[in-house]
Amino acid sequence: MSRVDIDELRAALRRRAAGLGFDRGRGARLADHFLDAELRGARGHGAERMRWLYGFDELNPAARPRLEERTDGLARYRADGALGYLALAEALDAELADPPSGARLVVVAECFPTGRLGYFAEAGARAGLLALVTATSTPRIVHPQGGPPLLGTNPLCLALPGDPPTVVDVSMGAVTYGAVLAGRARLEELVPFGGDQAHKAFALAVGLQLLVDALVPADGFGAVLLVARPESDPVPALRALAAGVRLPGDRFRERSS
Amino acid sequence: MSRVDIDELRAALRRRAAGLGFDRGRGARLADHFLDAELRGARGHGAERMRWLYGFDELNPAARPRLEERTDGLARYRADGALGYLALAEALDAELADPPSGARLVVVAECFPTGRLGYFAEAGARAGLLALVTATSTPRIVHPQGGPPLLGTNPLCLALPGDPPTVVDVSMGAVTYGAVLAGRARLEELVPFGGDQAHKAFALAVGLQLLVDALVPADGFGAVLLVARPESDPVPALRALAAGVRLPGDRFRERSS
Repeated sequence: MSRVDIDELRAALRRRAAGLGFDRGRGARLADHFLDAELRGARGHGAERMRWLYGFDELNPAARPRLEERTDGLARYRADGALGYLALAEALDAELADPPSGARLVVVAECFPTGRLGYFAEAGARAGLLALVTATSTPRIVHPQGGPPLLGTNPLCLALPGDPPTVVDVSMGAVTYGAVLAGRARLEELVPFGGDQAHKAFALAVGLQLLVDALVPADGFGAVLLVARPESDPVPALRALAAGVRLPGDRFRERSS
Repeated sequence: MSRVDIDELRAALRRRAAGLGFDRGRGARLADHFLDAELRGARGHGAERMRWLYGFDELNPAARPRLEERTDGLARYRADGALGYLALAEALDAELADPPSGARLVVVAECFPTGRLGYFAEAGARAGLLALVTATSTPRIVHPQGGPPLLGTNPLCLALPGDPPTVVDVSMGAVTYGAVLAGRARLEELVPFGGDQAHKAFALAVGLQLLVDALVPADGFGAVLLVARPESDPVPALRALAAGVRLPGDRFRERSS
């Protein structure tokens, strides 16, 4: 996209957010999330999602996430009606304003949808912390041997500080739901990735689902974010060892440079 | 294995640990780790590993892990010459003796080998906490397009409290190194799992490698363990939804019952 195209898309997304009732700051944030996804090549989390929001039954544009509990190493929030993207972003803002000297687990219950998790992990990395994020969503993943949809695509995302930050973001699905929404894949293709070894991606999706579900009250989606102060920067050594082999995130690096 | 076989194997493993110079308590723990792996069907982490230890250049049977730092939400240890299995077990003992009311990230640097991570995660679950564990090891995983070994098999393991605890433990390799050691697989088969989508398991292995490496000083293996107080028990609902479909850990459940 050219600079002009980007500016036009951003303006269009902001207008649409305003049309949904979001105030200027929150509309700008939603637009930024979707535009960033477009620019990172994660179109399934991009601009088409703004149209998707128009189909939501209950949007509460003024809702804000609520801090439910703060105890050693843990901060628990509840989205409390706020749209997942904003609930997670605003909870993270609050945590990064008072970052841990060690580590902190941040849980946001009732948090849906969350979009491209790299967006949030990268915010942690830009604040100098490593960030590990996962989140649940509508069950769409079936067992490799069939049965009902059991699990979200449950991505696992890590970001490390750097310029630009290093971001690794992997969903457990063979295709994304965004690709299904956009007609680029069929719903039946939304199985755990891995073909003959799909039971391994299925098991990872189960593990991440149980991790999130155990950290939120029964029922409802959630996002879990671990932020920690890094002790060293392992990226240069891995790049040197990889000796030119393409590493995860390289495509994003190229696009964002 | 019959009760008698189990008792005989345990006794043999303890004798061999004593032969390596481990005191009674630590020898019993090593024996327990290997025996548990045998009983859980993870033979690659089982009894044959005791023989493998006989080939180690520098075993320091008296070494103990050292606490390097304790700060909000984080405890950092260094194995300090202790064998990885014991360093991780003893660091975890210390943390579970004073468990977090919220969450805590436990990092053990220079920690190798760590064996079957489910062993440690399950100890956390038995103490009433959810436990997420990963660890690095000798680079053996190559990029799906070839090149030098870059990454350990970097398993990700989650355990949740329950009777028995629920344990999900997935390595990013298509086969285990234990299977290679035992001649059940060839080293060339030790690639990221997933066939056509092996780039996804490769990316997960990169993410977990960077997570661990960023939390330890430059160079050296490490183990990272997150323990947190669960808010709810999601296992019954998932089992009900799965309606009889085999879930990860079911094989272990059956064997341990």
